[in-house]
Amino acid sequence: MTEDICQRNGYYYFHAITTRWMDNDIYGHVNNVTYYSYFDTAANQYLIEHGGLDIQNAEVVGFVVASNCNYLAPIAHPDTIELGIRVNRIGSSSVEYGIAVFREGAEQAVAHGTFTHVFVNRKTNKSSTIPGGIRTALEAAVLG
Amino acid sequence: MTEDICQRNGYYYFHAITTRWMDNDIYGHVNNVTYYSYFDTAANQYLIEHGGLDIQNAEVVGFVVASNCNYLAPIAHPDTIELGIRVNRIGSSSVEYGIAVFREGAEQAVAHGTFTHVFVNRKTNKSSTIPGGIRTALEAAVLG
Amino acid sequence: MTEDICQRNGYYYFHAITTRWMDNDIYGHVNNVTYYSYFDTAANQYLIEHGGLDIQNAEVVGFVVASNCNYLAPIAHPDTIELGIRVNRIGSSSVEYGIAVFREGAEQAVAHGTFTHVFVNRKTNKSSTIPGGIRTALEAAVLG
Amino acid sequence: MTEDICQRNGYYYFHAITTRWMDNDIYGHVNNVTYYSYFDTAANQYLIEHGGLDIQNAEVVGFVVASNCNYLAPIAHPDTIELGIRVNRIGSSSVEYGIAVFREGAEQAVAHGTFTHVFVNRKTNKSSTIPGGIRTALEAAVLG
Repeated sequence: MTEDICQRNGYYYFHAITTRWMDNDIYGHVNNVTYYSYFDTAANQYLIEHGGLDIQNAEVVGFVVASNCNYLAPIAHPDTIELGIRVNRIGSSSVEYGIAVFREGAEQAVAHGTFTHVFVNRKTNKSSTIPGGIRTALEAAVLG
Repeated sequence: MTEDICQRNGYYYFHAITTRWMDNDIYGHVNNVTYYSYFDTAANQYLIEHGGLDIQNAEVVGFVVASNCNYLAPIAHPDTIELGIRVNRIGSSSVEYGIAVFREGAEQAVAHGTFTHVFVNRKTNKSSTIPGGIRTALEAAVLG
Repeated sequence: MTEDICQRNGYYYFHAITTRWMDNDIYGHVNNVTYYSYFDTAANQYLIEHGGLDIQNAEVVGFVVASNCNYLAPIAHPDTIELGIRVNRIGSSSVEYGIAVFREGAEQAVAHGTFTHVFVNRKTNKSSTIPGGIRTALEAAVLG
Repeated sequence: MTEDICQRNGYYYFHAITTRWMDNDIYGHVNNVTYYSYFDTAANQYLIEHGGLDIQNAEVVGFVVASNCNYLAPIAHPDTIELGIRVNRIGSSSVEYGIAVFREGAEQAVAHGTFTHVFVNRKTNKSSTIPGGIRTALEAAVLG
């Protein structure tokens, strides 16, 4: 992979998120915790839109087993932001996404990180192979 | 006021909010608490866009002294929603907003409530008359 | 009812909650939204501890249909707080709680409000009579 | 360092946190995002209690520049939890904490990660050497 994890063209799918009043903390910036809420929302949005994930009824769903974030520059509500998603690695039952936060229309990310889903049968809590529709969507998001 | 608090035409200003994965609770719907985050965001957005509120530097800001919500029908992420805002009452240093939550494009609200700001000098914590630009914006949002 | 809704002796059950860094907003106080998270946690805690509610598996659960809060004095993380709960009214399928927020050990509330649960069958989403164990617990919390 | 990052004796300071109703997501477990709120709260609590940090008025405060978490086993509200904190590395203006989540009294962590603060002058947003009281507290939390 030669794409830059800090550049817009390093990502495959974009999801716009509106910031909220509560996202700002006592220091006047979006709190570090909230970025993971953006990550979670954007990764699942990709699965819902492109992989057919039904979060209310699906038998197999993605549980998060690891995540990380590097914060490069502050953002603050009422900024509008876009999340960039790509897939770094796919295994038989897990996937690692690369995710970055961009100010609307910006080329340079203000934060980037990764997020790993393991697919699990919701009733048994046992790991499961990635469902076909989701796997197809994930493979499409692997860059170069 | 004869406008219906459950109807789109009972509101003056609309602000779209993207729901988040975390908004759903264990019962699969947007948690009751989260509606107030929508209220807070939408009321302040009106002040920022139309009243010139600078939340980082303003000397006089709005503190919430009362709020309430009636939940009429559930919503769930990934629904997209719009918040409707109007002004019910303006005093010398306070304002009560009427607020409702609509599914995107819907005529009927899924929740409605009120939200009361008292304007306060940020350094002294004493109540203040409503700044001129904000008052003008608030008066414009009084219906009927 | 003659007990004061702003006094500790106006409440039946108390639940301590640790505040969090994120509870403070840009103005340096616990955000208005977060109080409802305290309400939700404390009311359900009462049902879990005293009414036998199993939030993972119960067939009948409480959905919130109305809530309100009056904010009397600010609190800020790292304050430690206690939530006071009582029952204002019980119907066949619904209950209105009275709830207040106290700084640890304080007699005077910093906020008070109400919170209304309608009990609903989780599969059908239809309202249900209040389960027996929960009703007994709720009746015990009616004051005066 | 030979202490195990998954064991209670791998940590120096412990802070109990009460879970909240909203911490559970649609899958019935504490949402991955919320763990970072625990991290943030516990690391700052150590600075407040032992390093004299005044989050309302301090000139120099800690901004988060990196964080990560590995989720080993699910937790769910109403579990009670304890956060373990240690210091992995101290630089002139930054510190990396090691943090883990334990069920109350448990020896084995259910999650562990790191969290990096850069100390910044709040007015200028420029990085600053770590204030003396905080540095002393951080040095005490370096294990092994």
